Amino acid sequence: MKSDLILLGHGSGGKLSHELLDSLIVPTLSGIGQREQNDAAILARQEGRLAFTTDSYVVDPLIFPGGNIGDLAIHGTVNDLAMAGATPVCISVGLIIEEGLPVIELKTILASMRTAAEQAGVKIVTGDTKVVPRGKADKLFINTSGIGVINHELEISGSNAQVGDRILVNGTIGDHGMAILACREGLELESDIVTDSAPLNGLVNTLVDELGDQLHTLRDPTRGGVATTLKEIALQSEVEITLQESSLPIRPTVAGACAILGLDPLFVANEGKLLAFVAPQAAERALALMQKHVHGTSAAIIGEVTATAKGKVCLQTAIGGLRAVEMLSGEQLPRIC
Amino acid sequence: MKSDLILLGHGSGGKLSHELLDSLIVPTLSGIGQREQNDAAILARQEGRLAFTTDSYVVDPLIFPGGNIGDLAIHGTVNDLAMAGATPVCISVGLIIEEGLPVIELKTILASMRTAAEQAGVKIVTGDTKVVPRGKADKLFINTSGIGVINHELEISGSNAQVGDRILVNGTIGDHGMAILACREGLELESDIVTDSAPLNGLVNTLVDELGDQLHTLRDPTRGGVATTLKEIALQSEVEITLQESSLPIRPTVAGACAILGLDPLFVANEGKLLAFVAPQAAERALALMQKHVHGTSAAIIGEVTATAKGKVCLQTAIGGLRAVEMLSGEQLPRIC
Repeated sequence: MKSDLILLGHGSGGKLSHELLDSLIVPTLSGIGQREQNDAAILARQEGRLAFTTDSYVVDPLIFPGGNIGDLAIHGTVNDLAMAGATPVCISVGLIIEEGLPVIELKTILASMRTAAEQAGVKIVTGDTKVVPRGKADKLFINTSGIGVINHELEISGSNAQVGDRILVNGTIGDHGMAILACREGLELESDIVTDSAPLNGLVNTLVDELGDQLHTLRDPTRGGVATTLKEIALQSEVEITLQESSLPIRPTVAGACAILGLDPLFVANEGKLLAFVAPQAAERALALMQKHVHGTSAAIIGEVTATAKGKVCLQTAIGGLRAVEMLSGEQLPRIC
Repeated sequence: MKSDLILLGHGSGGKLSHELLDSLIVPTLSGIGQREQNDAAILARQEGRLAFTTDSYVVDPLIFPGGNIGDLAIHGTVNDLAMAGATPVCISVGLIIEEGLPVIELKTILASMRTAAEQAGVKIVTGDTKVVPRGKADKLFINTSGIGVINHELEISGSNAQVGDRILVNGTIGDHGMAILACREGLELESDIVTDSAPLNGLVNTLVDELGDQLHTLRDPTRGGVATTLKEIALQSEVEITLQESSLPIRPTVAGACAILGLDPLFVANEGKLLAFVAPQAAERALALMQKHVHGTSAAIIGEVTATAKGKVCLQTAIGGLRAVEMLSGEQLPRIC
C-alpha cells in the first residue's frame, strides 16, 4: 500500500481499489488469487436446507476490551446461523470505510476477521469495499452475511418454545455492553470487563447432536439483551416465560458497573451468549453439556415457560416479588454492535 | 410509526426497533409474519452449485433520475449473481440509517426494493437495521447480499476469456454515472439522462440457455466503467483485448455531458449493462438475442480478444489511432453506487 490512509480512490473500482484489494483485503481475509476474483463466489452444492443471515456492525469504538469490530462481525453472523441450528459455511464481508481511516487499523481488524473465521470454521468468500468522504461515515462499518447448512430435520425456532421448557443461558450476561460502555466512557472499571464476543456454532452443534428434538428454541441475546430476546420469543411462541432473578449469572464487576450507571443487565447486549429452550426432561443434560464446553462454563438454568399467553415475561425477583419484563424501550446504548 | 423521523431508538433492538420492523420494514420488503422472524432465514435445499455475493450501496443522492438507492441495491446484487451464470434466489438487506432520516423517504426506498425484487424474481428473506447518530453516516447506506443457484455446468468467469472471443455490450454506456453526476451538480442536461439501473438476470438466462459453452465471460461494468472491467478480465484471462471506439454505443446526451465535464464514458459507471465474451461463431446470434431483449435493444459488438498477453486493453480510436486503456486511476466520481 502506497498510502498510510484510506483514500477516496480506494473505493473507485479502479487502480487504487485493486491495489487495496490485492495488497491488503484479499490476502488478509481469504487468500483467493486474482484469477478467481469474480463478482460472486461459487460454492459447491450443499446437502441440506440453507440458513441465510445478514448483520451490519457500527460499533464505536472500533477496538474495545477483548475484541474489535472485525471479530465481532464474524461472531455475530456465525451465531445468527447457529441459532437456526445451521452449520455456518461461508461469509461475505462488505466494508464501508470513511476516507482517512489508517490502513494499519484496517489491517488489524481484517486480520481479526480472518482469525475469527478460522476459529469458527467458516470461509470468507466474497466481499465489497466502499469509501465515503470524510464526515460521511464514522471510520468503518462492516456488513457480514452468511450461509449455513442445516443437515437435520429439527425446527429450531423462536416460535417453537413450549410450556414446561426450561430456559438456559451459557454464561454471564451483560459483558459485551458494559465492556463497550466502560471503554467508551473511560470508566475506571474497564480493565475488568471484556466483551464476551465468541462463536457459538460449536456449542450449538453439540446441543443439536445430543438433544435432538428436545431442543426447541435458540437465540442470541444481542441488542436489547436477555429481556428483549425473551419477550420476542414469548410473543412468537405465544407463551408466558418466568425468569428467576437469583439464577441469572452476572459478573460482580458487571453488576457493579450497571448499578453505578443505573442500567439493568437484563437489557444489556451480549455477543457470545445464547438462550436455549429445552424440554424439561433434557434440561439437566443440556446444562451439563454447556458447562463442559469452553463457551458455557458459567451456564445456568434461568427460567421456564410457565403458560400459554399472548407473549409475557415475568421476573421472580431475588426478594420474592414478581415483575413484568418488557422490551428495551428507547435506546440504552447506541452503536453497541 | 409514531415518529416522522428515524430515531436512535429504532436501532436499539428493543421496542422502537420492533415498531419500525413490524410497521414498515418487514411488511414493505417481504411480508413475513412476526412468528417467522428468526435470526436467519431458512431456504429449501437448492439443486445446483450456489453463487454468493455482497455489495454495499452509498450512492449520493439517495434518489436520482430513473431510480434510487433501493432499486439500485437490488439490481446490483441480482446482476452480480447473474454474471456468475446463476439464477438469483434470495437477497438480504442490511440498512445503516442516519438518525433523522425522514420515515417517508425510507418507505419510498423500501417500496422500490420490493418492486425491483419482484421484477427480478428474487425474494428478500432476511435483514438487519442499524441507526447511527446524526453526522455519523450520510442518510442511508444499504448492503444487499444474495444467493443464486447455478443449474448448469458452464464455467462463466473473468478468467475464461479466449483469443478470438467477440465482446458484446447490451446497450449504451455511461448512463448511470452521468445521471448521478448531472443530478448532483444540478446540470441543465439532467432531464435527458437517466440511470440504466436494471436487473439483467433474464437476459443472462437467455444467453446461457441459447449459447451454452460458447458464452465464456460475463461481467457488469459498474464502478470504473467498461475500461476498468475489461482491464480486469484481460488480467484474469491473460489476454489482449482490442476495442473499437466507433462501435461503442453512447447516447448523444451522455457523450455531450462527458465532453463538457472532461470525462471519458469508458470509465463511467453503468448499472444495467453487461459485457459478454462469446466465441466468434456465436457472436451474431448473441447480438440478435440481446437486441430482441428489453434490456438489450442497443446492444453492440464492441471488440474482441486479439491475443494472449499479460492483461492488455487497446482502443482502436475513431480517427484510426490505437491507444492503451488502463484502469480508472484515482476517483472520478465518489459515491456513484
